[in-house]
Amino acid sequence: MKATVSRHAHFNSAHRLNVSKWTDIENKEYFGPCNNVNFHGHNYELIVSLTGDIDPVTGYVYDMKELSDLIKNDVESRLDHKNLNLDVPEFKDLNPSAENISKVIYDWLRPSFSSKFTIKIKLYETPRNFVEYFG
Amino acid sequence: MKATVSRHAHFNSAHRLNVSKWTDIENKEYFGPCNNVNFHGHNYELIVSLTGDIDPVTGYVYDMKELSDLIKNDVESRLDHKNLNLDVPEFKDLNPSAENISKVIYDWLRPSFSSKFTIKIKLYETPRNFVEYFG
Amino acid sequence: MKATVSRHAHFNSAHRLNVSKWTDIENKEYFGPCNNVNFHGHNYELIVSLTGDIDPVTGYVYDMKELSDLIKNDVESRLDHKNLNLDVPEFKDLNPSAENISKVIYDWLRPSFSSKFTIKIKLYETPRNFVEYFG
Amino acid sequence: MKATVSRHAHFNSAHRLNVSKWTDIENKEYFGPCNNVNFHGHNYELIVSLTGDIDPVTGYVYDMKELSDLIKNDVESRLDHKNLNLDVPEFKDLNPSAENISKVIYDWLRPSFSSKFTIKIKLYETPRNFVEYFG
Amino acid sequence: MKATVSRHAHFNSAHRLNVSKWTDIENKEYFGPCNNVNFHGHNYELIVSLTGDIDPVTGYVYDMKELSDLIKNDVESRLDHKNLNLDVPEFKDLNPSAENISKVIYDWLRPSFSSKFTIKIKLYETPRNFVEYFG
Amino acid sequence: MKATVSRHAHFNSAHRLNVSKWTDIENKEYFGPCNNVNFHGHNYELIVSLTGDIDPVTGYVYDMKELSDLIKNDVESRLDHKNLNLDVPEFKDLNPSAENISKVIYDWLRPSFSSKFTIKIKLYETPRNFVEYFG
Repeated sequence: MKATVSRHAHFNSAHRLNVSKWTDIENKEYFGPCNNVNFHGHNYELIVSLTGDIDPVTGYVYDMKELSDLIKNDVESRLDHKNLNLDVPEFKDLNPSAENISKVIYDWLRPSFSSKFTIKIKLYETPRNFVEYFG
Repeated sequence: MKATVSRHAHFNSAHRLNVSKWTDIENKEYFGPCNNVNFHGHNYELIVSLTGDIDPVTGYVYDMKELSDLIKNDVESRLDHKNLNLDVPEFKDLNPSAENISKVIYDWLRPSFSSKFTIKIKLYETPRNFVEYFG
Repeated sequence: MKATVSRHAHFNSAHRLNVSKWTDIENKEYFGPCNNVNFHGHNYELIVSLTGDIDPVTGYVYDMKELSDLIKNDVESRLDHKNLNLDVPEFKDLNPSAENISKVIYDWLRPSFSSKFTIKIKLYETPRNFVEYFG
Repeated sequence: MKATVSRHAHFNSAHRLNVSKWTDIENKEYFGPCNNVNFHGHNYELIVSLTGDIDPVTGYVYDMKELSDLIKNDVESRLDHKNLNLDVPEFKDLNPSAENISKVIYDWLRPSFSSKFTIKIKLYETPRNFVEYFG
Repeated sequence: MKATVSRHAHFNSAHRLNVSKWTDIENKEYFGPCNNVNFHGHNYELIVSLTGDIDPVTGYVYDMKELSDLIKNDVESRLDHKNLNLDVPEFKDLNPSAENISKVIYDWLRPSFSSKFTIKIKLYETPRNFVEYFG
Repeated sequence: MKATVSRHAHFNSAHRLNVSKWTDIENKEYFGPCNNVNFHGHNYELIVSLTGDIDPVTGYVYDMKELSDLIKNDVESRLDHKNLNLDVPEFKDLNPSAENISKVIYDWLRPSFSSKFTIKIKLYETPRNFVEYFG
């Protein structure tokens, strides 16, 4: 008797898409306006989903309050009102694409959960573009 | 040639989270404000999804009008403008968590559909918390 | 140079529509399923709007963080995860319709703001029904 | 290290549900108001999802700008502000149900992508009804 | 003590923009793809708002159930799953722009309400374009 | 016979809140994380509304395609994928609060419209905070 529970969160960050080992011209050509040297930004909307057994006593897969607190402590505190390229060490040499941000969030959250849970990260970079990452 | 068709519905209910075999103090501690003895409530948004073959003549997996009527008769009539703990027999000894509500809805709907369909219940308790249940 | 700034908030409450001086039959007839003696509930979505001058130095009409804190302290703490009829003294003899809830919220918030601000309360009882109240 | 990237698009079309080999009465009975001989219409919201490897250099599964252009050229140009039954050859003898429209869109887009990508079409006919098609 | 109450509804219609006294070329030039002779269509989202006094006994400006029924009978029955140009007499010589549809809806609904109510029609032709009409 | 027509647009920008004549400590204290020296960012959602007469021939208050193009040329080209503080001359000495951004957009657009139109700018900085500016 498995179910998936999901929790929304959000953070507002600046970033620029840039591959550090490419030249400025290569980056400009490949990433276009997303490569703007002065950055641009997004309201990222994050959905963290956990799949696991429904506890027969509590009726919970996982306590949503606890999940919400974990996201606040492990994700929002590091990304909200930050510049992903300059303020977040994980993106020093890693392009902060929505795919890579999802992977970084997954790697931060995964150790907090027992291996019996499957975890999925869904990240809206804009209301029109989003990424899903399953680890 | 399979596809999944989905239909939104909604119901407004009161509930409290409470495990009947726990003491009041245990319930208060575990469920916090969701344990309020006088209840609180939600606009539940429900999405029922059916996966099956696309009928080569009609181009339908399932008639959405018929699905909508089934949800009205089997789900909304039992949960809308109700107190889940007091008015719905299934929750007499079952904590009405979003996970358990999804399971109860699944069990109500499943017998109405041929076994060739896969059924999924998605239930938003709030715009920020939701559950998926696959049977 | 005036502008209006608005902040979203939300609370989840149980209620029943009932006029205390009417008979049970009159209430049942007038309010239908909303009169359920065991209550039902909603995810109320609240938008508080302030109209005033844009401060020429800060560029703010009002600090959104401060507005958000006021709503938490003056509104959410009193209504979230509560039964409006039983837990909120203002509705002891006042029917907790969306109109009256909006008025009560307005009356709670108004004293916190200088009279140079115009205040508007917008309250979604469901995604399909909402009320606006201007004082 | 796989991820899924998704892009929203939209098109506004007229259609009627009708099986060409059925009689008018059979169609009327089965499809009801959706069979209106003068057509009705929808704002279709389309989400195209690609699952594949995250490129270790660019951090992309697929360039969203390129995906957006493909959808414009291969889908929107053929369906937007069109009558599906009269203006789109694929629906000459195929009922333009949401399921069949999803399949037609899949068949248009699939050849543009390497076989290493899995493609999913999600099509909202209304905010309350939607279809997913995986090929 | 005035408030505004609002109710959402929706209808799915086909239409084409066309001024009957213009030539085909003039219409094509002015309205572009919206002039497609075979029609296109929309999921129109309608919000009807009533401003009036809060009744001191019931706490209602207007009964939302009654408003919902009026919209079903006076608006949805005439526009849903219809071709606005061909099936709705009001648009025989009137271009079914969102502005004109709003005006027609207003004229249908206005007689049902006492003059002490102010009425506003808000009509989304798409999630990106909308009109407000106040009579 | 007046109506209001509205058009949605969007742009993704980086910014920091900062009053140039204040000290770093004063800015940090007043604006908190929004003052981050390395910037943060938002998906701004913009709604431009025009109030005017419905043209008795076309049924338009204003051509939405033309309005959309004006917004692209006058607003999106200057703000999308930009750093408001560094790339937009108007914010060299003006704090890019949502209120001030709305005012700047209004001042850019106003000259394009005849004085018979009333113009309103609605700007969502996040889905939870927004500003309205009327000139």
